[in-house]
Amino acid sequence: MSGPDPRVAAIRSAVTDAVADLPDGALVLVACSGGPDSLALAAGLAFVADRSRRAERPVALRAGAVVVDHGLQPGSSDAAAAAADACRRLGLDPVLVVAVDVAGPGGPEAAARAARHDAFEKAASDTGAAAVLLGHTLDDQAETVLLGLARGSGARSLAGMPATRGVLRRPLLALRRADTVAACEALGLEPWHDPTNAADHPAAGARSRVRDRVLPVLEDVLGPGVAAALARTAAQLREDAAALDALAGVLLADATQAVTGRHDGLVGLDCATLAAAPDAVRRRALRAAALTAGCPGGALHRTHVLALDALVVGWHGQGPAALPGRREGRRSYGTLVLGPGRDAAGGDEQFSPQRDEQQER
Amino acid sequence: MSGPDPRVAAIRSAVTDAVADLPDGALVLVACSGGPDSLALAAGLAFVADRSRRAERPVALRAGAVVVDHGLQPGSSDAAAAAADACRRLGLDPVLVVAVDVAGPGGPEAAARAARHDAFEKAASDTGAAAVLLGHTLDDQAETVLLGLARGSGARSLAGMPATRGVLRRPLLALRRADTVAACEALGLEPWHDPTNAADHPAAGARSRVRDRVLPVLEDVLGPGVAAALARTAAQLREDAAALDALAGVLLADATQAVTGRHDGLVGLDCATLAAAPDAVRRRALRAAALTAGCPGGALHRTHVLALDALVVGWHGQGPAALPGRREGRRSYGTLVLGPGRDAAGGDEQFSPQRDEQQER
Repeated sequence: MSGPDPRVAAIRSAVTDAVADLPDGALVLVACSGGPDSLALAAGLAFVADRSRRAERPVALRAGAVVVDHGLQPGSSDAAAAAADACRRLGLDPVLVVAVDVAGPGGPEAAARAARHDAFEKAASDTGAAAVLLGHTLDDQAETVLLGLARGSGARSLAGMPATRGVLRRPLLALRRADTVAACEALGLEPWHDPTNAADHPAAGARSRVRDRVLPVLEDVLGPGVAAALARTAAQLREDAAALDALAGVLLADATQAVTGRHDGLVGLDCATLAAAPDAVRRRALRAAALTAGCPGGALHRTHVLALDALVVGWHGQGPAALPGRREGRRSYGTLVLGPGRDAAGGDEQFSPQRDEQQER
Repeated sequence: MSGPDPRVAAIRSAVTDAVADLPDGALVLVACSGGPDSLALAAGLAFVADRSRRAERPVALRAGAVVVDHGLQPGSSDAAAAAADACRRLGLDPVLVVAVDVAGPGGPEAAARAARHDAFEKAASDTGAAAVLLGHTLDDQAETVLLGLARGSGARSLAGMPATRGVLRRPLLALRRADTVAACEALGLEPWHDPTNAADHPAAGARSRVRDRVLPVLEDVLGPGVAAALARTAAQLREDAAALDALAGVLLADATQAVTGRHDGLVGLDCATLAAAPDAVRRRALRAAALTAGCPGGALHRTHVLALDALVVGWHGQGPAALPGRREGRRSYGTLVLGPGRDAAGGDEQFSPQRDEQQER
């Protein structure tokens, strides 16, 4: 007897690794749109749960699914019902279908993603699931990195999607989209192809255009290894960002501690402490401090951070640095003070770092 | 009287900033190919030196040029002579024309760049020049970042070109290529267009293809700010890499210091010291240690570094990690030892970390 198709085996192996740390009897959900990635993942999860039932664990894993209906185009509820049926045929139970309301900050893709993630987390909490598996592949990761390039915010915007965040897990980040398509075919599964994923569809977003138009050109010009290289880069930049963010947190605490004098209700940081740190750490700390002082993250650009930085390491008596959200940074006797800007003084907006920090999260 | 064309003014201002720290009477060379970027830069330098002669400095700056003839296509010496003439007409003196021999490791573009940089440094040393200005623009920087994406080596491959390295300075990194073309036009200068820069030329390299085929698609799909975003990202990743490399250096020294027992002629590192560091810092330190142990940099990939890392933070009694250059890493009583691999033992290659380290540099 020959083994399964190698792509099917690779997906099963990836799922096995992704759930290895879960306790016996745990419920695992797969987020399934009915597309090739998540359908192949659903089949992989069903297989792994079934095998654990037969042999490997004292108490078997349980496998279910959550299907999100974004309600963004006609027939979306039919597509969701079909995906749910496919999951039930694979033996997954429970299978939840959740209609979400896509309206939020950012573009339509960002709003849909936020609504979807909320739905996944709620489904996990409602069913007691220990994990929700997402079908993102190496191709999705490469697209995410390319989309991040357009933001130009350094490692933060290029770090791509983590393999694990909270209950969400992405077992397929090392596999190609073509692998999931081939796995579905080998298993006789018929995936649904979302028409809005085609770049020429009116509702197609930047991600679809990157997929259809940018990645093929990059692979043609730079070589077929580009997608894998982008994914590797994302993994390394995520490590870098984690290390530097942690160092910035320590620096921020030290610089706050070292402030002499009082700056009630304002963020005060000792300039000498800040100045001793490497640029990358100090500038991350300044960005974090500006967020704490109430600057809206989306409007806080590198130019603002560099203006604050100049108050610390390029001090020549310059005036305050204007910050978004009607905030400003100024230097006073060796302390960098972040608070409401001059033009906010007469406004109706009360400065409240605590409240604004909560809004930021 | 109206002022100069704004693009001309921007280039002059960029040159003024780039030479502000040089001592009075210093000689500054511009590296000029005759193309629009370096010709506009040459004109900017001539203007700034002339102005310093008239007013601003007790002893004026002197401005010269260095023109490299790569000898890679017929007529290259004519093109070099024409570029030198253009520089002389701008009043630059001395104007050096240097023929280089392009043959070295890496692809033809890497070899040409290495030969060019050697020639610039030699020209500076021969003439006593304090700086050599290069005409790279924001477009070049964006192309460099995209080329780095294909390597997938994280921040190191995406960090682009520094504004300053040794005597080399790049005043135009914040300006667009279109600005230099417009500046030449406004000044009545006729730049030479290198036929091998066209993507359809047989000698065109990956950079030309990125310029002609990738960047336009990216700007079309992601928006016209992509080139600037890539350049911003490069600047931030350069900061990140500098901070993390410095931390890795400290970690490596600490981990070497903490080793108990002797590992004569080998690189020995204390695993507990390494394990306490963040992933990004520890893995950089491991990469640096592997280079010191004699692994050739070009063949040392992330998979090798992760295998070493597993010996430190994922230890379960596994065997040695094979490294390129017939080296290996193994764990012995809490010490990570890097040295010659098993298959090198009977070979004719003597293990010598010192010698190999020098070769690496």
